[in-house]
Amino acid sequence: MRATVYHGKCDVRIDQVPDPQIKEPGDAIVRVTHACICGSDLWPYRGMDQYQEGWRLGHEFMGMVEEVGKDVHTIKPGDRVISPFTYSDGTCEFCQKGLYTSCLHGSIWGGAANDGGQAEAVRVPMADGTLVKIPEEASNDEKLLKSILPLTDVMGTGHHAAVCAGVTQGGTVAIIGDGAVGLCGVLAAKRLGAERIIVLGHQPKRLAIAKSFGATDIVEERDAEAIARVQDLTKGGAHAVLECVGTKAAMDMAIDVARPGGGVGYVGAPHGSENLKFSRLFMQNISLRGGIAPVRAYIPDLLKDVIAGKIDPSPVLDMTVDLNGVPSGYAAMDKREAIKVMVQPQK
Amino acid sequence: MRATVYHGKCDVRIDQVPDPQIKEPGDAIVRVTHACICGSDLWPYRGMDQYQEGWRLGHEFMGMVEEVGKDVHTIKPGDRVISPFTYSDGTCEFCQKGLYTSCLHGSIWGGAANDGGQAEAVRVPMADGTLVKIPEEASNDEKLLKSILPLTDVMGTGHHAAVCAGVTQGGTVAIIGDGAVGLCGVLAAKRLGAERIIVLGHQPKRLAIAKSFGATDIVEERDAEAIARVQDLTKGGAHAVLECVGTKAAMDMAIDVARPGGGVGYVGAPHGSENLKFSRLFMQNISLRGGIAPVRAYIPDLLKDVIAGKIDPSPVLDMTVDLNGVPSGYAAMDKREAIKVMVQPQK
Repeated sequence: MRATVYHGKCDVRIDQVPDPQIKEPGDAIVRVTHACICGSDLWPYRGMDQYQEGWRLGHEFMGMVEEVGKDVHTIKPGDRVISPFTYSDGTCEFCQKGLYTSCLHGSIWGGAANDGGQAEAVRVPMADGTLVKIPEEASNDEKLLKSILPLTDVMGTGHHAAVCAGVTQGGTVAIIGDGAVGLCGVLAAKRLGAERIIVLGHQPKRLAIAKSFGATDIVEERDAEAIARVQDLTKGGAHAVLECVGTKAAMDMAIDVARPGGGVGYVGAPHGSENLKFSRLFMQNISLRGGIAPVRAYIPDLLKDVIAGKIDPSPVLDMTVDLNGVPSGYAAMDKREAIKVMVQPQK
Repeated sequence: MRATVYHGKCDVRIDQVPDPQIKEPGDAIVRVTHACICGSDLWPYRGMDQYQEGWRLGHEFMGMVEEVGKDVHTIKPGDRVISPFTYSDGTCEFCQKGLYTSCLHGSIWGGAANDGGQAEAVRVPMADGTLVKIPEEASNDEKLLKSILPLTDVMGTGHHAAVCAGVTQGGTVAIIGDGAVGLCGVLAAKRLGAERIIVLGHQPKRLAIAKSFGATDIVEERDAEAIARVQDLTKGGAHAVLECVGTKAAMDMAIDVARPGGGVGYVGAPHGSENLKFSRLFMQNISLRGGIAPVRAYIPDLLKDVIAGKIDPSPVLDMTVDLNGVPSGYAAMDKREAIKVMVQPQK
């Protein structure tokens, strides 16, 4: 089959690789119908992560179950399924608590050992603990499927940021980052009842989506002026701040616009954010919660709301490619010409 | 009157200073009967904070109300009172939420502008929002007063660490730091129902107190061996970790012994802890909460429990001096010969 393979900085290719096969009785083979390129795929693409030549790419996908091992009971061939960006056993202490990303036997898709989602098919280990069946009513609705696709990662990740930041009914929220996760954070904050949602960003197209998702205020200033503007709008800081970038500048900004006693929910993969503005965190008792989002835990509820038409994150997918178009999709996201790219490997 | 004044690194003196006087209608003058030297007083003592010559010292005190301004209604001359280590108006948004340390008009005792607690008397601004009256039944019981004294700071701070770490009934707790705050953290964790309380430390005298306070396990190993031991004892990390030191080594240790999905409650004044072990925090969704403890919020409940004999933090006060003995008290704590020093300025 064909799959996206990393060859070096700014060099991803569609290579021929061995077809996936059932290896363990808990495995499933999924033919990928929809996948995405993730903002976090840009870290290796830009040479900022220790990614190695030959590793597979892509951790967001949905598809049709083609074959299952003898121990798989919750899905069967012909089912339409969605995968979170990690696989997990579903039975360990952490999965039972909903922290699927800390699964004792799980991992993220792609890399050296696992298939990637930007491919024709994927071998899914521990399929019962990983995959969620998409209800029949949505299974053949292309528009709905596009709305469901962000639940593989960015919608669940934005939701995790909102939960970890402590978004509450009637509260004030600030969101750092106008990428797909930040935009989904707007939807999540609105869904959780936030009354005022302030988005910090600069690109008109993204800010238009933010507004359509429920942003009440847009702050286009930068640096100290942006902080002053949020502090002014909120009269002392936002109750909940979603940090959806991962850089030190973004984390510092998040801490600076949080209200004393408030919370920062961070989900951006840390790249320099290790060195915190600690004095403000400490002096104002601002909590820091978050991390890699256990989106598997969130899929069932979010899926219901997408199917019911209550949320629709699909506007973040503003470019669509087939498998051959994946390299151009990476380039478009790298240049910020696209917010997020949908991949349709069967087209 | 006489008060403790900072003159430079390892140089604190008892100087003659002007008597405190009522300046604002909300003020009270308190004659200090009991005060403490705090572990955090050692930062300026050791020249590690920007403290300047002439600044007052001491932020933990109790005493007798001598005089009150015309707007003071909750206390009167002759009352025995306890002060938290900050003063606060009691009425602003943050005080109303219990976050007294973020009071819009408050500050910590001592420094350039405020009286310090290691003195004969203190002018207390916003006395109604700051001071708590000690019930008559305890007011003349010297033994009980010594047990109440740690509520000015270390007992409330240890409690804050426990609350922020998310200590729960039946949970497993690890405590980094065997100073007065860490030891009070043991009492707090036990009070909140923790089943297993692991203390990391090395000094036999402190560890004996930890055991008497409810520690179930003592880990005397250091560095990687200590982490391995806690990981082994807890089979994967403690649910709640109390970081009661403030150094980078202590914060790293706290993160390393926390269970995935668990929490670190940190209360040590940050001195190098700004640079976090972020990858583990992120990958295992370990929350980081804490900061300067709003002990004013905790005094009423903890005071009831001390008076009822349910908790007694007084063993952390293992040395007593009069005002002239304050410099030797600092030296004893600096050399770790004393855990915490009680000061009796009227003796």
